[in-house]
Amino acid sequence: MLTILLHPTSPEPLYRQLCTGIVAEIAAGTLTPHEKLPSRRALAAHLQVSMITVQTAYEQLAAEGYLYAKPRIGYFVDPDAVLLACVPSAAFQPESSPSAQPCQPADHIHFSTSGVDSGQFPFATWAKLSRQVLRTEQQTLLYATPSLGLYPLRQAIAAHLRAFRNIHAAPEQILVGAGTEYLLGLLVQLIGASRRFAVEDPGFHKGKQILRSNGASVIAIPMDEDGLDPTYLQHSGASVAYVTPSHQFPTGIVMPIRRRLRLIQWAENQPDRYLIEDDYDSELRFQGNPLPSLYSLDRGDHVIYMNTFARTLTPSLRIGYMILPPKLAMRFEQDFSFYSCTVSGLEQATLLRFLEGGYLERHLNRIKKTYRQRRALLLSQLHMHPVGRYLEVCGAQAGLHLLLRVHLNCTESQLVEAAHVAHVTVCGLSDYHESPPPAGQDFPGIVLGFACLSPEEIQSGIKRLLDAWSQFLP
Amino acid sequence: MLTILLHPTSPEPLYRQLCTGIVAEIAAGTLTPHEKLPSRRALAAHLQVSMITVQTAYEQLAAEGYLYAKPRIGYFVDPDAVLLACVPSAAFQPESSPSAQPCQPADHIHFSTSGVDSGQFPFATWAKLSRQVLRTEQQTLLYATPSLGLYPLRQAIAAHLRAFRNIHAAPEQILVGAGTEYLLGLLVQLIGASRRFAVEDPGFHKGKQILRSNGASVIAIPMDEDGLDPTYLQHSGASVAYVTPSHQFPTGIVMPIRRRLRLIQWAENQPDRYLIEDDYDSELRFQGNPLPSLYSLDRGDHVIYMNTFARTLTPSLRIGYMILPPKLAMRFEQDFSFYSCTVSGLEQATLLRFLEGGYLERHLNRIKKTYRQRRALLLSQLHMHPVGRYLEVCGAQAGLHLLLRVHLNCTESQLVEAAHVAHVTVCGLSDYHESPPPAGQDFPGIVLGFACLSPEEIQSGIKRLLDAWSQFLP
Repeated sequence: MLTILLHPTSPEPLYRQLCTGIVAEIAAGTLTPHEKLPSRRALAAHLQVSMITVQTAYEQLAAEGYLYAKPRIGYFVDPDAVLLACVPSAAFQPESSPSAQPCQPADHIHFSTSGVDSGQFPFATWAKLSRQVLRTEQQTLLYATPSLGLYPLRQAIAAHLRAFRNIHAAPEQILVGAGTEYLLGLLVQLIGASRRFAVEDPGFHKGKQILRSNGASVIAIPMDEDGLDPTYLQHSGASVAYVTPSHQFPTGIVMPIRRRLRLIQWAENQPDRYLIEDDYDSELRFQGNPLPSLYSLDRGDHVIYMNTFARTLTPSLRIGYMILPPKLAMRFEQDFSFYSCTVSGLEQATLLRFLEGGYLERHLNRIKKTYRQRRALLLSQLHMHPVGRYLEVCGAQAGLHLLLRVHLNCTESQLVEAAHVAHVTVCGLSDYHESPPPAGQDFPGIVLGFACLSPEEIQSGIKRLLDAWSQFLP
Repeated sequence: MLTILLHPTSPEPLYRQLCTGIVAEIAAGTLTPHEKLPSRRALAAHLQVSMITVQTAYEQLAAEGYLYAKPRIGYFVDPDAVLLACVPSAAFQPESSPSAQPCQPADHIHFSTSGVDSGQFPFATWAKLSRQVLRTEQQTLLYATPSLGLYPLRQAIAAHLRAFRNIHAAPEQILVGAGTEYLLGLLVQLIGASRRFAVEDPGFHKGKQILRSNGASVIAIPMDEDGLDPTYLQHSGASVAYVTPSHQFPTGIVMPIRRRLRLIQWAENQPDRYLIEDDYDSELRFQGNPLPSLYSLDRGDHVIYMNTFARTLTPSLRIGYMILPPKLAMRFEQDFSFYSCTVSGLEQATLLRFLEGGYLERHLNRIKKTYRQRRALLLSQLHMHPVGRYLEVCGAQAGLHLLLRVHLNCTESQLVEAAHVAHVTVCGLSDYHESPPPAGQDFPGIVLGFACLSPEEIQSGIKRLLDAWSQFLP
């Protein structure tokens, strides 16, 4: 039987520790190609963990290519697994792991809205492609890439957007940069810091901070059930609006077409108005077809489209991009092309191969499946619990978080505090508000992110959370 | 004999083409471990190139680990060369190579001040380390790194600065970011865009552009023979001065201690004044010991130190860093730590291993040797030519460019134009001026960068240049 040491107090989930242990056995040759792994039941009993932990680990390793499954028989070591040889080294320094990350003590569960699932990134593929680039494209790597990014990468991004988002943009309009944060700052320089930027309230704090830090004036616009309120916007004095129509952060609202058209109308009403469309999470829609982007609805030069590979690949890869309307792309070319692209040539060239080889598509399919399962589990856990009938789930059609409206006899901070006592971290909706919503107007809101949590953690986290909230039942 | 196809009209220097060809033969097995390569004379005659081209290629390949030399016998294939297997692929897309780079038509020689020598970057080492990281540090790669960068990398940079620059800074003061350009923009946010920034005139255009683009007001301060003129600075209304004391760009002046102390005095005279010390090229000093940095001379909280790995490794790696004085580091922590670090976790972790393994040190020794030879060749070519006695060489102690003061009967633009006719690109000093220097005050200045040129190109470029200038001899 496998002798894998698990550390229940480690911040790493048990199923990840189990994955790591199995991979180490493969690398050491203890597990040989085509060898059958112990049954879930046997290994769970042996290691004193739940069967679901073992199941999750096996599925994860199968997704990563270390194991293959024979239906109704079990899991076997893939003959290529040794080549992948992803052996987490003992030399790994815990202090090199970022402290401010969503890791929590083992008994603590954090429904964090940042981060992605740790097991999903295709390291072996990325390593292979990156090696190919270092071997064969040394010329590409010798110079800083053009300001907008490598041309073939921009072509590949354009093709990706055409195929998956029905967005038609020329590579000349695409600007690659070290993440949405950097791009947003650059955009302020490009369209001018003397403008007033409208943002959604509640909304993405960091976006506001970046705009302000770059010298722009920012006004928070209240939301109604369709999204940013156009009447407020009209009278706000803003000439730019920063919105997240695919999956509003944090309410999860998917902006309906009528509101998209209203916003575009607003932009068309005055020359030199812009909409910044942050399309994060648009790849992770679970129900129905994605709505047309603001960018593709725009008939003028009004929409700047932004997206990132941080959510779909890994946040440590700082690669985002934006589509500039032709007029702005020309302005950038003229006045800002002195800037070097902030993404390294190696990672641009690796991403290019990742896109061209169809790896992103496959990876998206895989993570969508994983996240759909977790979301379904989360929803079922919410519905099954006696507290469930006092909860209203909003914004669960897409993305990696949802919003709970809680119809219990308590305040939002009481809900957050009760969760905390039960070792569960959740955020109240009012944390995302610039100006507090009028008192008593709305039911308390709790934002739940689920990307970083294993099925096991979702299950026990929701149980603990709703058990804790039971005290507020009428 | 080797059958290598050379393309004299390709923008790639002949010696690089030759390197590529030899590596391909090694990869194909035509050249086997320990096999002796043809003598320089024989291969030069066979390929119809100069012996110096062959010599340069052999030296380059020896530096990269493909060949080893036996003194007075010749060059042999290193047994590990096949493993390096750096075969430039035929699939390389020429359009993916940035068009605005210092590549020129084959008959054109560009004494460019940007870019570094294409053959120097240790691709095989970088690939090896990056593979190790992808294999063993997946946890590091799953999250965006802390705002300041990976802590162990900042420790390694601190150790490097202590050992090689006698700079003592805590890792907590070091901020890693996607290149000096990005860091400079961030710095404007950190110390405030409402300030006036003093810059050197002549100076680094891009620096000025970035400061202005981030909303700062910029004033260009004339230089005297020691550097930025402190009397002008005193009356400029500036509260920040951006300087390049190790090797002023473009004059090449190394700022003497007395001027460094004067600038620090200026900063100390008023609260909240800062000096930004851009220490690019400080690693590439060819004569004497480096002077103490402004940072290490400062007794207060006045100096922000910046440097980059773009010059010492490759510009396509967008990794720079700055040391913030403790007070500013605290302000960053408090008000700006919402920013994610703009360098990918993979490249940070790879650079960490590169530093810890002593590879940077070895690499610096290697490139210093190469660049010292090129610089010596450049100087000797200048001195040997009849026009040489009308030239005054400035700023050649350090860095990858120098300044020629030309005492001939002509204007600067006539010199640039004559060079252009002879298919040589050089820049006039006045191109780097914000406000033109008073007419007739100085002799024409020509800036010569040599990092990207092979010895052969330096030789023929200088000959063509000075032949062309002969028309202005008295």
